Amino acid sequence: MAKVLSLGEILLRLSPPQYQTLIQANQLDCQFGGSELNVLATLAQLGHDVSLISVIPDNDLGRMTEQFLFSKQIGQEFIIKKGDRLGLYFYQKGFSIRSSRVTYDRKYSAFWESRLTDFDFVAVFKDVDWFHVSGITPALTEELYSITEFLMKKAQSLGVKVSFDLNFRASLWDSFQQARQKLSSLIRFANVCVGIEPIVLEGESKDLKDELGLARPYCDEMLLLHIVKEIANKYQLESIAFTQRESTHTNEYQLKAFLFQNGTLYKTEKTGIQVLDRVGTGDAFTAGLIHGLLSKGQPQLALETAMACFKFKHTIEGDINVVTTHDIEQLLYSNSHEIKR
Amino acid sequence: MAKVLSLGEILLRLSPPQYQTLIQANQLDCQFGGSELNVLATLAQLGHDVSLISVIPDNDLGRMTEQFLFSKQIGQEFIIKKGDRLGLYFYQKGFSIRSSRVTYDRKYSAFWESRLTDFDFVAVFKDVDWFHVSGITPALTEELYSITEFLMKKAQSLGVKVSFDLNFRASLWDSFQQARQKLSSLIRFANVCVGIEPIVLEGESKDLKDELGLARPYCDEMLLLHIVKEIANKYQLESIAFTQRESTHTNEYQLKAFLFQNGTLYKTEKTGIQVLDRVGTGDAFTAGLIHGLLSKGQPQLALETAMACFKFKHTIEGDINVVTTHDIEQLLYSNSHEIKR
Amino acid sequence: MAKVLSLGEILLRLSPPQYQTLIQANQLDCQFGGSELNVLATLAQLGHDVSLISVIPDNDLGRMTEQFLFSKQIGQEFIIKKGDRLGLYFYQKGFSIRSSRVTYDRKYSAFWESRLTDFDFVAVFKDVDWFHVSGITPALTEELYSITEFLMKKAQSLGVKVSFDLNFRASLWDSFQQARQKLSSLIRFANVCVGIEPIVLEGESKDLKDELGLARPYCDEMLLLHIVKEIANKYQLESIAFTQRESTHTNEYQLKAFLFQNGTLYKTEKTGIQVLDRVGTGDAFTAGLIHGLLSKGQPQLALETAMACFKFKHTIEGDINVVTTHDIEQLLYSNSHEIKR
Amino acid sequence: MAKVLSLGEILLRLSPPQYQTLIQANQLDCQFGGSELNVLATLAQLGHDVSLISVIPDNDLGRMTEQFLFSKQIGQEFIIKKGDRLGLYFYQKGFSIRSSRVTYDRKYSAFWESRLTDFDFVAVFKDVDWFHVSGITPALTEELYSITEFLMKKAQSLGVKVSFDLNFRASLWDSFQQARQKLSSLIRFANVCVGIEPIVLEGESKDLKDELGLARPYCDEMLLLHIVKEIANKYQLESIAFTQRESTHTNEYQLKAFLFQNGTLYKTEKTGIQVLDRVGTGDAFTAGLIHGLLSKGQPQLALETAMACFKFKHTIEGDINVVTTHDIEQLLYSNSHEIKR
Amino acid sequence: MAKVLSLGEILLRLSPPQYQTLIQANQLDCQFGGSELNVLATLAQLGHDVSLISVIPDNDLGRMTEQFLFSKQIGQEFIIKKGDRLGLYFYQKGFSIRSSRVTYDRKYSAFWESRLTDFDFVAVFKDVDWFHVSGITPALTEELYSITEFLMKKAQSLGVKVSFDLNFRASLWDSFQQARQKLSSLIRFANVCVGIEPIVLEGESKDLKDELGLARPYCDEMLLLHIVKEIANKYQLESIAFTQRESTHTNEYQLKAFLFQNGTLYKTEKTGIQVLDRVGTGDAFTAGLIHGLLSKGQPQLALETAMACFKFKHTIEGDINVVTTHDIEQLLYSNSHEIKR
Amino acid sequence: MAKVLSLGEILLRLSPPQYQTLIQANQLDCQFGGSELNVLATLAQLGHDVSLISVIPDNDLGRMTEQFLFSKQIGQEFIIKKGDRLGLYFYQKGFSIRSSRVTYDRKYSAFWESRLTDFDFVAVFKDVDWFHVSGITPALTEELYSITEFLMKKAQSLGVKVSFDLNFRASLWDSFQQARQKLSSLIRFANVCVGIEPIVLEGESKDLKDELGLARPYCDEMLLLHIVKEIANKYQLESIAFTQRESTHTNEYQLKAFLFQNGTLYKTEKTGIQVLDRVGTGDAFTAGLIHGLLSKGQPQLALETAMACFKFKHTIEGDINVVTTHDIEQLLYSNSHEIKR
Repeated sequence: MAKVLSLGEILLRLSPPQYQTLIQANQLDCQFGGSELNVLATLAQLGHDVSLISVIPDNDLGRMTEQFLFSKQIGQEFIIKKGDRLGLYFYQKGFSIRSSRVTYDRKYSAFWESRLTDFDFVAVFKDVDWFHVSGITPALTEELYSITEFLMKKAQSLGVKVSFDLNFRASLWDSFQQARQKLSSLIRFANVCVGIEPIVLEGESKDLKDELGLARPYCDEMLLLHIVKEIANKYQLESIAFTQRESTHTNEYQLKAFLFQNGTLYKTEKTGIQVLDRVGTGDAFTAGLIHGLLSKGQPQLALETAMACFKFKHTIEGDINVVTTHDIEQLLYSNSHEIKR
Repeated sequence: MAKVLSLGEILLRLSPPQYQTLIQANQLDCQFGGSELNVLATLAQLGHDVSLISVIPDNDLGRMTEQFLFSKQIGQEFIIKKGDRLGLYFYQKGFSIRSSRVTYDRKYSAFWESRLTDFDFVAVFKDVDWFHVSGITPALTEELYSITEFLMKKAQSLGVKVSFDLNFRASLWDSFQQARQKLSSLIRFANVCVGIEPIVLEGESKDLKDELGLARPYCDEMLLLHIVKEIANKYQLESIAFTQRESTHTNEYQLKAFLFQNGTLYKTEKTGIQVLDRVGTGDAFTAGLIHGLLSKGQPQLALETAMACFKFKHTIEGDINVVTTHDIEQLLYSNSHEIKR
Repeated sequence: MAKVLSLGEILLRLSPPQYQTLIQANQLDCQFGGSELNVLATLAQLGHDVSLISVIPDNDLGRMTEQFLFSKQIGQEFIIKKGDRLGLYFYQKGFSIRSSRVTYDRKYSAFWESRLTDFDFVAVFKDVDWFHVSGITPALTEELYSITEFLMKKAQSLGVKVSFDLNFRASLWDSFQQARQKLSSLIRFANVCVGIEPIVLEGESKDLKDELGLARPYCDEMLLLHIVKEIANKYQLESIAFTQRESTHTNEYQLKAFLFQNGTLYKTEKTGIQVLDRVGTGDAFTAGLIHGLLSKGQPQLALETAMACFKFKHTIEGDINVVTTHDIEQLLYSNSHEIKR
Repeated sequence: MAKVLSLGEILLRLSPPQYQTLIQANQLDCQFGGSELNVLATLAQLGHDVSLISVIPDNDLGRMTEQFLFSKQIGQEFIIKKGDRLGLYFYQKGFSIRSSRVTYDRKYSAFWESRLTDFDFVAVFKDVDWFHVSGITPALTEELYSITEFLMKKAQSLGVKVSFDLNFRASLWDSFQQARQKLSSLIRFANVCVGIEPIVLEGESKDLKDELGLARPYCDEMLLLHIVKEIANKYQLESIAFTQRESTHTNEYQLKAFLFQNGTLYKTEKTGIQVLDRVGTGDAFTAGLIHGLLSKGQPQLALETAMACFKFKHTIEGDINVVTTHDIEQLLYSNSHEIKR
Repeated sequence: MAKVLSLGEILLRLSPPQYQTLIQANQLDCQFGGSELNVLATLAQLGHDVSLISVIPDNDLGRMTEQFLFSKQIGQEFIIKKGDRLGLYFYQKGFSIRSSRVTYDRKYSAFWESRLTDFDFVAVFKDVDWFHVSGITPALTEELYSITEFLMKKAQSLGVKVSFDLNFRASLWDSFQQARQKLSSLIRFANVCVGIEPIVLEGESKDLKDELGLARPYCDEMLLLHIVKEIANKYQLESIAFTQRESTHTNEYQLKAFLFQNGTLYKTEKTGIQVLDRVGTGDAFTAGLIHGLLSKGQPQLALETAMACFKFKHTIEGDINVVTTHDIEQLLYSNSHEIKR
Repeated sequence: MAKVLSLGEILLRLSPPQYQTLIQANQLDCQFGGSELNVLATLAQLGHDVSLISVIPDNDLGRMTEQFLFSKQIGQEFIIKKGDRLGLYFYQKGFSIRSSRVTYDRKYSAFWESRLTDFDFVAVFKDVDWFHVSGITPALTEELYSITEFLMKKAQSLGVKVSFDLNFRASLWDSFQQARQKLSSLIRFANVCVGIEPIVLEGESKDLKDELGLARPYCDEMLLLHIVKEIANKYQLESIAFTQRESTHTNEYQLKAFLFQNGTLYKTEKTGIQVLDRVGTGDAFTAGLIHGLLSKGQPQLALETAMACFKFKHTIEGDINVVTTHDIEQLLYSNSHEIKR
């Protein structure tokens, strides 16, 4: 199996039980999450050797975090203990037409305040096969932008595969325009890009999809192919992968996923899913994709594996997927969801 | 914002957690409810100044009730502490084809035993813009029927707008016929009537809808318009509003709402909703309607506001809505239910 | 009402709350179950006098079991206390496309180790109207196979009606072939058979449905009728009843049920249901069927009663149904699932 | 083992979890209790055949009550289903210097409203060895006073042993004086009296203990003996038993118990106990006493058995004791409280 | 009743249920606390009209805070909504020899970042009888130190009584020495000082108690009197009040309290208490003291009232006391902690 | 830090929440335990590199166990996945005079059925500093006795330090006499023995303490010294350590510990402790002892370290200690148990 490294923040997620609102709650479920962490946790469960570059505070919450990392088999050789805040977020799970809501409280966290000089990156990519980053970390501070860029470049120069999940979060950027500019500058250091927004394409002044009239769900697949080809060319990407969710008034989605490689746009069937927890599903997709690409099989199989992880995570409570290769295979090769006994 | 007054009982709701039956339960979730209280609570959250006329016992349960009223910003200047029973009800939440069940235990409560002479109603409508009552209170005792009538008449004579939610509960009346006679006698003191059953129309001996063949869901809108016109004329009503729910075997409804004003029957689109808690949704509709009518905009907007409150409450656990004007606006002007972060 | 006897194991069911996986759990809901127990519990709630032949350990878990049996009004005159293991199973409830999973831990239990000589069966069928067994007990050990056969034969010889629910559990048998042979040998001692698989039909070497191309859902009802006729003839059965479940990606089923009697295949409408707990629904069907057949009415009514129990159990948490004759009647004769208050 | 009958109300107890106050609670633990019920439940666990004369409502709460009675093996042949209220009480558990608080809500319950003519008492004492009543039932209504008196007299006339637990509850009587008069009139129909207050003794105008200067804890045992002798003589009692609790600010008591028989005052050692739930401890004492007296051994052993039940119940949550004869023996004959494994 | 104003931060307290450690927890109880808030909440329950000067974020957590303030009847006319962090703290409750632990996460909170210019303090003391502050607020930032000083001076100049609870928290100061200097500078603007450490006395270079050899528990009451006299003189204080806690290895304390007024040192008996929640007990003492001093009775009664609040809070879970004047009176005038029914 | 290896079973512990009995429970807290596992878990938290030789089933429970081992940093290189039962035990926590009760269900578990040939022990002690076993494993089966003996001998021959905790469990042996004979045969392969019972001493026919009149608590320290000297000589032990618990009726103990080395009997002060969870306290003592002995300091310090772990574990819920070196130091060098903030 492969050695996968990532950079990202570990957040404590605090959420009212069931479908309560914060105003109704007097207990909060607590667990850990964070986009890159979620990707690594799934990869570890699928058998890979994973490590996270991060900073956690040197207090009881830091110790709580360490035990969590141990339990998920996430290597801590690049975890620094420093500062006194663990980033956290409050998550109010929606129901039907009531949207889920995330309130971040991650500013000034130990990770937020980290500087390049805090780390020893000399041998950081030793034996590493894959390096994964998301667009969240560079959105946090200028310094973290630089650290992200530094590591992506270094990985690229060492021949380590780099995946970059754009992961646009409106509340972390000043403007969509700013996100587009800054994220686009990083894409060129990646081999695999997850997501197609927000990305700068030559000559456009607004977002790509608006410019070219690309609407979600992606019905115009010719246009879609045209756009991803442009992106791949402009940013020299080996693969571009992305998902599509359609929802109605129910706690249900129609899911679909796409993978562009060597001029071909692979796609899955549209499949329905009921949602237990929506958070971390994109990360599960990315983990499945990395797992699939690492196994060097057919692109379609890599995409289906990513899709299986993606679907499965919708049925698991919490940020972190709980999945085995056996679960993935069952989804890939069987249609029965009957009780197993 | 307006000052809204209501009259009604505060009930302690005891319900098995999740979808347990009473026989399975060894804990009961406890919270407060009551039709008029629910209406006021939503109005307070939408910015109005609200007060309830009620009676609560002078014991630990009364104190528990007071704190609840404070937390929901419901004015207590007309709350009397007297007697020793707080009315309560057991609520067993249904699932799919298994119906929800309410077992009332409100007889002989402090409110049930209240008499007109317990209250000082001299200045009760001072500065009040709107007075709301429901058909539940006059169903409880003869005395409460008189108090309801007394206050409706007084409000009417002082030019305070009066809304009356028929709120028929089979178990509180001797017969449907009795309910129809007694509720109809009160409608004439209202400006706004919520619901169209049970109402006496000239010459009929059975229920209006049977007489004229009005079936639910209301497909024959011509007939519907004819009937509500008749009601409005006979009872001199400014507005008549009502909702319609269609359900299948799932925990899902198709909702629609109607508002009759000045000869026109306004209606909403039919929209689907998954149900977290069905109780109090009618009260949320009424609150939204009062809020809409108080803002003196277009009837259609008032109706859509009522519909938004109605829909939203289906996704909130408990009798009491947890909603902000921001939530209402989001439902009125946006279609996305995606996670907000 | 009738006196119904059964033979079977009582299992402690341990399941993570809600939709957690075992890996996520730090509490387990605990309750009792077991196919035959479930059948008896429903019959007791419908007014019958029921008893179970079983073995429970003589320790705190045995005492816990006794209290449970008392609470469900299951007669204990044939419960033996011996040995030190209560069989148990871990049940991980699935969600949407994630399957439910049962991990049995019933080997070497007090019941598992029971021998014919442990029991006094001299007067076991005194006043008994109906004897029910399932294919689970004979799957456990050779000795339990013999005990099952002994009791079925004895019941048959005494004119006690015998129902046999095939209840195939892959993990309890060496092979499907083995199950087919051994279960088929027992069917001849039954009057009523629940299920049509796995049953040996003349000349076949694989499973019945494969042989004749019978596919689920049963669209080819002519073929279905042909097959059940063959089974009834070969095994001299009065009745054969079975259900059919179709599921999609949601927590929802389309249910249908069949009853073959005197050459006619009765069937229900297909009806949708949302699932709260899938376990024990087949047992509820069987209980409803026995209840229906005992009341000696029309076969169609017996089948509809079985179907009502079957549907209802899908909405009840746990192995054991919580149902009254009133609930059954409501499902048989009403279509409204509105809140009852 | 003996057949024991009692008369009394079944109450639903609703209590905030742990040491929360009602104002803090949003869930309430629910379980059943009632003094006479508690006595019977313990006796059933010690092997006796017990039945309760009572009235429960004919609704979902009544059904919940029935299942509870089944689970505790309390015979229901004299349980009438009628009316629509189950009596209940709210119990706020105290901690250290904060007292526990009971808020009764039992007025107008099905039992409260019962009348002598509701019951068929013709063969009520058939095969009955012991009849137990407490001072709570006659305190509720005049009619229940009459029913209690009627049954005590009838039992006495038939040679059934009668125990009477005075069980004074201030909130159920108009005055202490009233309680004293009315309870004393009933004592003469009992063989065994539990408690020594409030009892009328010749010539006194205030309470016995005040009159004669008897102070708790009972240090002056000569005076105590004198008083119980007087009581026994005046009311023709075979046995008088009572307990003594001393508490400090902690959740801890010093317990002691006394039994007067044939001129001798038997007593136990004082023993310390930590309190998990104080409710129902007196009832456990009474049950242990009846059990002890029924086994016709030495008075001291009967008293020690009562004391063991009494102590043990302090360590069990809820109204109802959970105890076996083995537990009692362990307390009687061993001093080690070490973990049993 | 009086109008009481305070200045202070509202914190969200997150604590593992029961006696779990953070590492064991997967749910956290959540509630609000903060020293000055706690004082006001108790005063409101004792009938006073209270308001808090504070800053809360303008997000879902802010809205959650508002509802909490409403429920506790704490006036919000000086609550500003601004910024995006609510201060919070993690509280791990200790047991026996394992200490409780507080991990603050309040840096950069909305309150922390507040500036004098955020507030409109023109009429802040209108109708105010009492102003209370604690040593926590001035420890947070230089700006908050200035705001505290500004308000204390302004109150003093307007004749509003000022109480100052020193409330030393080691983790909020650079050094004990720094705390001593800065807190002492504020004492002169107070009428009532709660606590006697850390306070500068002429010529000393270390802490008062060390300098003069004052040891806890305070056995040398002559020395104690000497010291408090010195403090009162130097800082021109009307009253100095303080408590003393002695603990052993158990969850139990010996409590005592002192009040110095007009040259006399009043003191209470030492009383034992078992501890349910240790947090907020000092604040309850202060609230009781303010309540006592406002009622202008004997100093000893004021002290006993403070002591009753202090004791009572040890038995209540959470930061906030749940107490009534009736509870206080019961503690002042009765010794029985028996169940009230 | 050292590398520590152990051999032992991992059990799933199922316990009713709080102080419920099994009969009252409908949820069970679940967590992992086992004497040797508990020792290793504490050692890992104190910084050592630990591994367990064990067998877990190859199913969902096995996977649950693996994640647990990861979270506690217990090396799995000698964990074999085989079989289908995870041993488990039900634990009913006692209160005051009600004893805690353990019901084992570990027979036929994957570990129980393990054979020497299942393991590859060629390089099992590579780099290992310390090997720990307890008297539980050899009590389970003859084969496990042999495996224990084999490993102890092998460790001894390789110069690895061996500790042996006698850990007598009555229910695992046929008789005390059998335990004594079989355990004594193993002691000679250990360097450190924890516990002094049951051990054979020359010529005795009953238990050592009875023979020589050694009573607990150990008041006669001369006799105690004599006995441990005899044991040390006979079995060639470097160290003998043991604890002493005295309890009354309360949830409280007086603890004391002893360590014999080089002819000297070191002992601690007696200290009181309140008990949150009694299970695993002996294992915490052993872990502290090994930690202390590994650090090669003064025997008294090693003993005090063991005592600190021992005390601390009484305040932690579950089998597994949650402790840091910082916690130990705080207990060793400070007397204050005040809240840390």
